Amino acid sequence: MQFDSLDDIRSFCRDLPEGDARAASAAAERQAKLTKPPGSLGRLEELAAWMGRWQGSAIPRIERAAITVFAGNHGVVVRGVSAYPQEVTVQMVQNFASGGAAINQLARLANADLRVVPIDLERPTHDFTVQPAMSTDEFLTAVNVGCATVRPDDDLLAVGEMGIGNTTAASALCAALLGGGAAAWVGRGTGVDDAGLARKRAAVDAALSRHGAVLKDPLQVGAALGGRELAAIAGAMLAARRYGIPTLLDGFVATAAVLPLTGINRAILDHCRAAHVSAEAGHRRVLGDLGLRPLLDLDMRLGEASGAATALLLLRAAVACHAGMATFSEAGVSDANE
Amino acid sequence: MQFDSLDDIRSFCRDLPEGDARAASAAAERQAKLTKPPGSLGRLEELAAWMGRWQGSAIPRIERAAITVFAGNHGVVVRGVSAYPQEVTVQMVQNFASGGAAINQLARLANADLRVVPIDLERPTHDFTVQPAMSTDEFLTAVNVGCATVRPDDDLLAVGEMGIGNTTAASALCAALLGGGAAAWVGRGTGVDDAGLARKRAAVDAALSRHGAVLKDPLQVGAALGGRELAAIAGAMLAARRYGIPTLLDGFVATAAVLPLTGINRAILDHCRAAHVSAEAGHRRVLGDLGLRPLLDLDMRLGEASGAATALLLLRAAVACHAGMATFSEAGVSDANE
Repeated sequence: MQFDSLDDIRSFCRDLPEGDARAASAAAERQAKLTKPPGSLGRLEELAAWMGRWQGSAIPRIERAAITVFAGNHGVVVRGVSAYPQEVTVQMVQNFASGGAAINQLARLANADLRVVPIDLERPTHDFTVQPAMSTDEFLTAVNVGCATVRPDDDLLAVGEMGIGNTTAASALCAALLGGGAAAWVGRGTGVDDAGLARKRAAVDAALSRHGAVLKDPLQVGAALGGRELAAIAGAMLAARRYGIPTLLDGFVATAAVLPLTGINRAILDHCRAAHVSAEAGHRRVLGDLGLRPLLDLDMRLGEASGAATALLLLRAAVACHAGMATFSEAGVSDANE
Repeated sequence: MQFDSLDDIRSFCRDLPEGDARAASAAAERQAKLTKPPGSLGRLEELAAWMGRWQGSAIPRIERAAITVFAGNHGVVVRGVSAYPQEVTVQMVQNFASGGAAINQLARLANADLRVVPIDLERPTHDFTVQPAMSTDEFLTAVNVGCATVRPDDDLLAVGEMGIGNTTAASALCAALLGGGAAAWVGRGTGVDDAGLARKRAAVDAALSRHGAVLKDPLQVGAALGGRELAAIAGAMLAARRYGIPTLLDGFVATAAVLPLTGINRAILDHCRAAHVSAEAGHRRVLGDLGLRPLLDLDMRLGEASGAATALLLLRAAVACHAGMATFSEAGVSDANE
């Protein structure tokens, strides 16, 4: 799957695949027959029906789960917005390759295929306080990088990111596309001190002033204020929709990354669930604005798809119960009111 | 481990093993060196240190996890307090044995040893609206049944229950030991209608009136208003404390089951975590009263340790990251402020 222009993306978003409503209904009907009081597995039941809808099956499966971590570098780090130097992005990509990061442990536990996709790390985006982070061509290229990582036979996708400075980009996207100003969205990211926090806020404010002219078009905003790994997350999400793959969004940055798409059509979220709500200040707010209820609330704020990988365990629980439980009649258990 | 009298239980609760503070500190120190911003794994970090404390190891493990489901029957069901007939308790025990219940699927997913322990199902407790549910001897026997299910080399314990009518017993325990009256604690359990809900409230009110004389002693309250499976949960929790086994409490009933112990010494909860907060009305309230923050909030209300088994997956995530991640120096990643 590939997009040739921003208009191509807009067209796709305006006429989205809707999933298989009959499969979702069949999954819900199956839930009602399983040996438990109706609804007593709570969100695990809803998750089973949701996965059924997008996989087009009354009994969804997780046999080829993918966790994809996109990495990018950000020109805005020259503004002193991160507690870590930019070289940590490439160092962490190396750590992913050698198996030492949190996501390596979590992907193994979740029995998922971990795909690490560094995008032009040696070529950071421009400092968006002085010019657009990316040209529209660069943005489109990164979207297509994301699309290309998704395989049509993946049956579950979890997306996350790594990129020193990218909570600043995420905050800028939120402020531009959801309003509220920098103060509402900028948090401590990996752990900046008060002075760093002030620099982040100033950088986002400067970006909002400078790029006011493009702020009406969500995709242009994605190019001007986002980052390559954020654009790739949007691309992966589009491809997952195309192929009918239920998708877990990781944390604040991954959620902000989809705003250029939800700015076109909120229904792009229908095949997605918010894996968790992180400790990063803006995340709870953006989830609320998007109407997404997170699956986990564990004060995590690491990124690199760690929250999504952890939530994938819950999807496995949902699928295991849905597929494996006996019905009342199979088990010879008396149903209520019978 | 066995208790010869209620006084034996009281003595144990007043002089509890405290766990290994040095192991907990060593675990926290290890967390600080792993390749992530400090604290960025949130509660997963705290869980690793907590497990380290009780296992007495800087690197806790989950190699012999046990999920124990105690089952009991309740005389109070003659008051029409459940949506299901009493025979469902034994039918569900058979369903556990044949592998068709939710907990079978979840225990397999969590790679845990599932132990199903029916206790005198053919001999329900007495209807506590007219006499104590159990004699103190019967209560003590059930506590010891629970103790005996815990093996000294278990390294993680998840406890839950099955018993038609037992949310009524749990509500009665909460009302007697935490105050607030029946209305504050009685919910719909497996799904009673409004008339059933009124009957549950009336049953709890009647029990509170009848047993006022014993309501000052928490263990006597456990005998008068509890159930065999609740007493066994308390016993398993005591044995887990004795052997240094971190313990996950399941839902409303499992949490109410520990109130006879917390009434003696709140510190009995130190080796426990609340797996989840259920949709059953009183659960959030009792967790708040006990100062327990649940790990999951998924609207589950099935019991049978299903919430605890799901939360066990999170403990596996915590342990996997703690044990498997590289340190900054091992990975050659630049630490903050260096």
